[in-house]
Parts: sequence; C-alpha cells; structure tokens
Amino acid sequence: MVASTPLPSSDDPRLLDPVFALHAGGKMAVATTVPLEGAADLSLAYTPGVARVCEAIADDPALADDLTWVSNTVAVVTDGTAVLGLGDIGPRAAMPVMEGKAVLFKEFGGVDAVPICLDTTDPDEIVETVVRLAPSFGGVNLEDISAPRCFEIERRLKDRLDIPVFHDDQHGTAVVVLAALRNALVLTGRDLGSSRIVVSGAGAAGVAVTRMLLAAGARDVAVVDRRGVLSSGRGDLPPVKLSLAQDTADTTGRRGDLADALSGADVFIGVSGGIIDEASVARMAPDAIVFGLANPNPEVHPDIAHRYARVVATGRSDYPNQINNVLAFPGIFRGAFDVRASAITESMKLAAADALAGLVGAELAEDCVVPSPFDRRVAPAVAAAVADAARAEGVARRPLPA
Amino acid sequence: MVASTPLPSSDDPRLLDPVFALHAGGKMAVATTVPLEGAADLSLAYTPGVARVCEAIADDPALADDLTWVSNTVAVVTDGTAVLGLGDIGPRAAMPVMEGKAVLFKEFGGVDAVPICLDTTDPDEIVETVVRLAPSFGGVNLEDISAPRCFEIERRLKDRLDIPVFHDDQHGTAVVVLAALRNALVLTGRDLGSSRIVVSGAGAAGVAVTRMLLAAGARDVAVVDRRGVLSSGRGDLPPVKLSLAQDTADTTGRRGDLADALSGADVFIGVSGGIIDEASVARMAPDAIVFGLANPNPEVHPDIAHRYARVVATGRSDYPNQINNVLAFPGIFRGAFDVRASAITESMKLAAADALAGLVGAELAEDCVVPSPFDRRVAPAVAAAVADAARAEGVARRPLPA
Repeated sequence: MVASTPLPSSDDPRLLDPVFALHAGGKMAVATTVPLEGAADLSLAYTPGVARVCEAIADDPALADDLTWVSNTVAVVTDGTAVLGLGDIGPRAAMPVMEGKAVLFKEFGGVDAVPICLDTTDPDEIVETVVRLAPSFGGVNLEDISAPRCFEIERRLKDRLDIPVFHDDQHGTAVVVLAALRNALVLTGRDLGSSRIVVSGAGAAGVAVTRMLLAAGARDVAVVDRRGVLSSGRGDLPPVKLSLAQDTADTTGRRGDLADALSGADVFIGVSGGIIDEASVARMAPDAIVFGLANPNPEVHPDIAHRYARVVATGRSDYPNQINNVLAFPGIFRGAFDVRASAITESMKLAAADALAGLVGAELAEDCVVPSPFDRRVAPAVAAAVADAARAEGVARRPLPA
Repeated sequence: MVASTPLPSSDDPRLLDPVFALHAGGKMAVATTVPLEGAADLSLAYTPGVARVCEAIADDPALADDLTWVSNTVAVVTDGTAVLGLGDIGPRAAMPVMEGKAVLFKEFGGVDAVPICLDTTDPDEIVETVVRLAPSFGGVNLEDISAPRCFEIERRLKDRLDIPVFHDDQHGTAVVVLAALRNALVLTGRDLGSSRIVVSGAGAAGVAVTRMLLAAGARDVAVVDRRGVLSSGRGDLPPVKLSLAQDTADTTGRRGDLADALSGADVFIGVSGGIIDEASVARMAPDAIVFGLANPNPEVHPDIAHRYARVVATGRSDYPNQINNVLAFPGIFRGAFDVRASAITESMKLAAADALAGLVGAELAEDCVVPSPFDRRVAPAVAAAVADAARAEGVARRPLPA
C-alpha cells in the first residue's frame, strides 16, 4: 500500500461514511519500480537507453515479456451492464468495482490489473476494442458483462487472442463452487457422478457452474430458470440455454419447476437471486448441500437452510463457507502468468478448484468447506496447480521461474 | 518506488547490459492505496460496501471524480508508428517508451498513467477505441503517432471528449521550445514579434512549435521541409502544411531552401533530423539562437553551432540547455487534473511555457535558458500556471484544492 496522490475536494457529507471516505481518490495508483533520481537514471529508463530496448523487442517480440510490465498485467474489462446485483449502471459507475477487483488482483496475486470501463455495450465493438488493446496486456479479465452477451464476447476474444481471456463472473464462481462442493460431498459421503444437483439460475454464473460440474464428472444436473427445468422440449430456449439443456436434463429426463427439481435432490446451487421456500428445501435428500450464493440475500437464508441441510454456503462474509471469487481469480492469473500461458483452459480451472478444495485439509467440517479469503496459502497453491496444468496441457510458453 | 513483482526468466546476455537489466519486469506496477488486511477492509473496498459507491456515481456521475482513481489517471496512447527516432516499430516494441512516459508522469507530476499500445494504425479505429476507453481515464496523452495522422486523431478526439487530449510530441515540445526561446531572446536583446525564425521540419513537432510561436506573437516564421520553405505557391502541400504556409511564409514572402531561409535569420529550430551545414549556420544573424533538437544527432552539433550562435540548445542530456518534454507534460496534466479541466487549451500551454521560462530567473545565461528536468520546482510551477489559465479560460470544473 502506498499513499494515494489525489485528494478529494468534495465536501459531500457522504465522505463521512467509512465506505465513501475509503473511496476518496480511488483505491489504486501507479507505482514506479525503477530509480529516477538523476540524469543517469533517466538515460536508462527513458531516452536514449530505452531506444535499444524498443529495437530489441521489434527484432524479437517475445522479449516484451521480459522487458515490459505487460506479461504481469491484466485488463479488467467491463461495459457496466451487470454490476454486482445493481444491473446496468454504466461504465462510470462500474469503476469502483473494477478498482476493487484490481486491488484484489494485486494484494492476493501480485498481478498488476488495470480497470477498463468501456463506453459501449455492443458486442462487436467490445471485441474489437479489446483486440486493439491486447498488445498492452498479458491477459483479459472480463467482468460484470450481462448474459448472454458475455458468452459471445468471451468466445470471440478467446478465438482472436493468444493470451488468457477469463470471464470471472462465470469461471471464478464456478471454480470456487466446485471446490466447496468437492469438500461438501466428502463430508456427506457422496460422489459427484451419482449426486443429484440442482442449479438455479441460467445466467453467466449458472451456465459456467453447470459446465464445470459436467467437466468434473457430474451426471445429473438440472438447471432451472424462471420457467422451470431447462429441457429441449420447452421450445422457449435461446441457444446457450438449449445447449445446456441438451447436456443436462435432456439426458436425465428431469422436468418441472424448481420445487419438483429439489424434491430428493442432494445439492442446491443458487446463482439466481430468486428466493426458494422452506418447504422445497425440506424436500431435499437427507444431509443435503445448499449453496445460496445470491448477494446480499441468499436464495435460502442460512438459518433456514441449516434446519434441513448438512452443509450450507453463501456469498456472504458474515456466515461460514463464503463462496468468494477472490479465492480463485488472483491465483488463476498468477499461475497463468507465471508460465506465460496462452489461455486459461478447462483443465487449468479444474486444477484450481482441486487445489482450493485440498487446502482445507484437516480443518474440513460442515462450517469449513473452503479456505478463508485471507488464508495466504490460497493464491500460491492455486497458482502452482494452474501452472502445472498449463504445462501439462501444452499452453505454457515458458517453464516456471526458479 | 516499490518492488517489482515479476521476475525475468530470460537468460538473454543482454540482461547484463544496465539498460536491459533495468527493464527486466518492466518499469512500473499497480499499487493499492487502501488497506486489505481482513474481512472488514474487504467489505469496505469491495462487496458489499462498494455497491453504495457505485449507486452514488450512477445517481451523480460527477462523484466519480472524487471516488475513483479516474480523475488522476491519464492514458498514454500510441499506435507505435513514430517511436522516438525509430519510426514504425509497432505497439509491442513501443511499450518501453510508454512505460517510461508513465513513470515520468508519476515521478514528476504525481499523475497515474497507463500505457495503451494499440494494435491498429487506422485513424478511425484509433479514435473510436480511445472514445470507448474514455470513461476509464481523466485525460489522454497521445504519443509517437506519425504525422499527418496525429493531427486528425487529436482534433477528432478533442471534439468527441470533454477531458484533456494532448499530443505530447506536438505540444510538449512546443511548450519547452517556447520557454527556452523566450529566455534566449531576452539574453540576446530580441523580441519574439520582430525576430526572424526558421523552423526545420513540418511533422508533429514542427507544426506545433510553429503554431505556438505564432500564438505567442511571432510574425516572421519560415517553416522548411525537405523541399524548402513552405508556401502556398509550391503547389505540393498537403492540407496541414498548406494551412501552415498561409500563416507563415505566405505573409512574409520568404521563399527558397533551408540555406536561403537561414541567411540572416535570428533563430533556428530544428525538429527534422536533417543535418544542416556549417556554412548555413555561419550566415545567420549575429548572436543567433540555434536549437538543434533531433536526438541523438542534433541538426547542428553544438560544438559547431557555438562557433556562430550565442545560445545553443539540444535534446541531449549531455549538453547544456536540454529541451526535454519532461519539463512540460507532468506539470501540464497535474495542473489540468487539479482543476478538472475539460481540455488543455492554447492559453494553458502558453502559461506553461511562461512559467517554465520564469523559473530560470537569476540563473539566466547562455548555458541556462531552461531549468533542469530534476529541478523539483518545475512541475508545481507549471501546474499552478496551467490551473490558473484553465480557470481564467473557464475550462476548470472545480476550484483548486486547498
């Protein structure tokens, strides 16, 4: 932490509020990592010395990884259309969240992150803009872009760029959910392949969580949106949901509404914000697992969930088992950057989830299925697992630094 | 200065070279300016607290100036087409210069600067990209974009955006040249309005220097390109040069080549990189002023220039009177940001030049017409003058902070 340069001029009484006072002048700054005390320093860091570095990179572009800050820097890109639970508040109002993300990247992962809030919501324009920015960054973290636009934007950027592109609302959430679920399954004597899982919500997080569960071996997942279980037969599904239906309830034959789906289910994962009633929770299988991740109001209040479920998790910091993306994204990018990975692949995300789950170790208990965000082992462990997976999959461009 | 996070992995022998060693891992980093030690900190800087800050900005966008880092942050934007004297080396190879610029912004002006190297050279695409990025930044510093594209790009961005847009290769150079020239004219008993001035080079710097000299009161400027003095009669001039001809030699009737223009001239300002011969310098007026600013090889070597001229300046740090943009851009943006100026206007640039010239004070001498880049009075003095000018011109959006 360094002193902030700007001083607020506003006499707005909100600045007396601790949240507003903390935000005065923003939460981040640029820092210089080289000496600039005199002419000799200037001649190395700037002209004339810098010209030789530019020429070397022009001759061998890979040298940019070693000789600039790019390979440790991620753009945190949003269009402000799906910010927290606030919705489409625009790029300017999204900045405090993006700065927050940037400081978490730095503090937990040692990753330099630059918030980029875009004044466009058009997917073509977002893709083109990010592609044009790409030489400046070693990776792209997409953030708070509304579904279904987020799926297309991420897919197109992954196709166009040879650096990691990662929509954290999807994959960060999915990694932490899978980690928590692995431990909850151990505690309740289940295995993933034979558990009945209900995912409520088919937006960015719901789609990614479901895809990740399937990749990890889940075979009975029902995804529920406002109209009920996703199945091809419904005839009202847009492409992303139709594809998900084909890989979930179409294979199991499950149908009906959320209450139907929950009846006898082993696991509930709520990423919808909708409230479910106590009676539905009561009809789940014994020793059920309930993750109500909507913030600040979980789909099932943890006090109610505990009446029926054995393992309960939320997105809230004031209850045990907080499913918080900060457990994932700093270590995932740290690991990807450490080996200069060209992408963040499915196997890297699975490795991150397993590493996260494994850290709980002997402390595993109903109220401890994920580590604390302030457990300093988290990012290094996730990073090491991600780096190993990247090398195993052949997307690493250099060995791990010594 | 903080410790750099990344470590270079390369065993390239060039890293033994002090310039390359200094560039290992880049020259800058992101720093966190708020505490993130525990859950309470996280709940202020990130969820749930941050949501209230986002909502407040959504209600009153001007609050973003106080509650985010945006109002102190400049994008340093290039397309890599005119990097130093190296030419079109592309966005990746341009990064070391942009990082250098960013660290100078921070060290000298307390301005947070983010290097943005764009993977496009199309003016329409550059303009659209920067407009889309604009919510993330309080200002735009264009850098090392080739002429004549730089003129159009800057003009269109100034039209589209209500934040400062400043092409440093033009205006930063012009401000420092005018400052040095004001002092050189005092020393040699001249005034600007009656001096015969020759500007060699009609690229970004040549055009801006000439425009600034005219704005400051010069009445006899001849601008020379490879084919001689710019005049409408030549019939070979593109629009920017034609317009410049109409405001310079067309009004004085001066014609011919560089040698003709220099004969009897009071002032030579070289921003071309072309070499001029000793005989031409010899034909200048007594007590001539010679600024050969090409780097690393001035248009006239200072040792030769001194045989005929009374005041000699270069762009080099190893000779007296270094015309270095770092004397201007940190203070100009500091001043513009301090009053949240909506633009950097002609009067703000003139004020910057006068403030810079005034700092020399009692030390004024043939070998001291501009302050040292390491004179710590420079940026604050330039900033104060720029802020005053912004307020006088009505482009300031807040009073100076106390």
